[in-house]
Amino acid sequence: MLIREMTPQECRAFVERVGFGRLGAARDNQPYVVPFYFAYESGRLYSFTTLGKKIRWMRANPKVCVEVDEVKNHFEWMSVILTGRFQELPNTLEYALERQQALEALEKRSLWWQTAFASGQVSGRHTAEPIIYCVHIDTVTGHRAVPDAVESSIALAERAKAS
Amino acid sequence: MLIREMTPQECRAFVERVGFGRLGAARDNQPYVVPFYFAYESGRLYSFTTLGKKIRWMRANPKVCVEVDEVKNHFEWMSVILTGRFQELPNTLEYALERQQALEALEKRSLWWQTAFASGQVSGRHTAEPIIYCVHIDTVTGHRAVPDAVESSIALAERAKAS
Repeated sequence: MLIREMTPQECRAFVERVGFGRLGAARDNQPYVVPFYFAYESGRLYSFTTLGKKIRWMRANPKVCVEVDEVKNHFEWMSVILTGRFQELPNTLEYALERQQALEALEKRSLWWQTAFASGQVSGRHTAEPIIYCVHIDTVTGHRAVPDAVESSIALAERAKAS
Repeated sequence: MLIREMTPQECRAFVERVGFGRLGAARDNQPYVVPFYFAYESGRLYSFTTLGKKIRWMRANPKVCVEVDEVKNHFEWMSVILTGRFQELPNTLEYALERQQALEALEKRSLWWQTAFASGQVSGRHTAEPIIYCVHIDTVTGHRAVPDAVESSIALAERAKAS
């Protein structure tokens, strides 16, 4: 197995394709990690939820970390780590344009709405106002592991393309 | 889809079976999330790595969060969130017993060693000392989503068992 760093372009394409990852928040230096769906667009992740611990923590401290991975097995995986800042997009005139952009990106993955609302059931939050938010991306790093044989053919293809 | 809370027993069985999740650390209230393999045993997660950002951050602040999930689709998934405290198990007399216990648990998943060492390749850490550590679990919560039809049969089976 060989592990190599992914380029920023590879990271972005991967994050956009997968659209699912883990969102890390922190409060009083206690980290909190939850799975979440998102839509990637123009250097931002848009997502949707209802009021809960995740939102309360991010309102108190907007610093977040997002991890997106795809693990086939121990020897073949990709993992991208983003750091960024949480921003809520409330239903006000000030945020109207950005909220519209977020909703359009989110509508492409319409199942989310159903999932996020259903998750309100468990804590009796049926009537909770939907909360739209985005993560402004500050840094991106990614690593990819491939079995030796695959790595050789990628290297061969890259050398062929370069020559 | 119906979402329900998992019992502590269900959470433990799930975490033990999966043995893979995301580890969240925090420094100066900046969260950091990475994928990691672990062995669950007696209320602890044991894992193995080489020196890097993750270990430096957890040495500075031992508060961690671990998220373990299995997502079949939007309507069928399990997610368990643990909070706990990082503890390094150095190769000294004081930690000999606990380190032995950790190594035995880790040996059952021997591929880890190869993976963790290989990851040293990318940053030129070939000769780094292996670091064994554990996470003492403080709190565990879990949620499970099942499609309506499946939920009905689970409820039926539970009622049958209870009667």
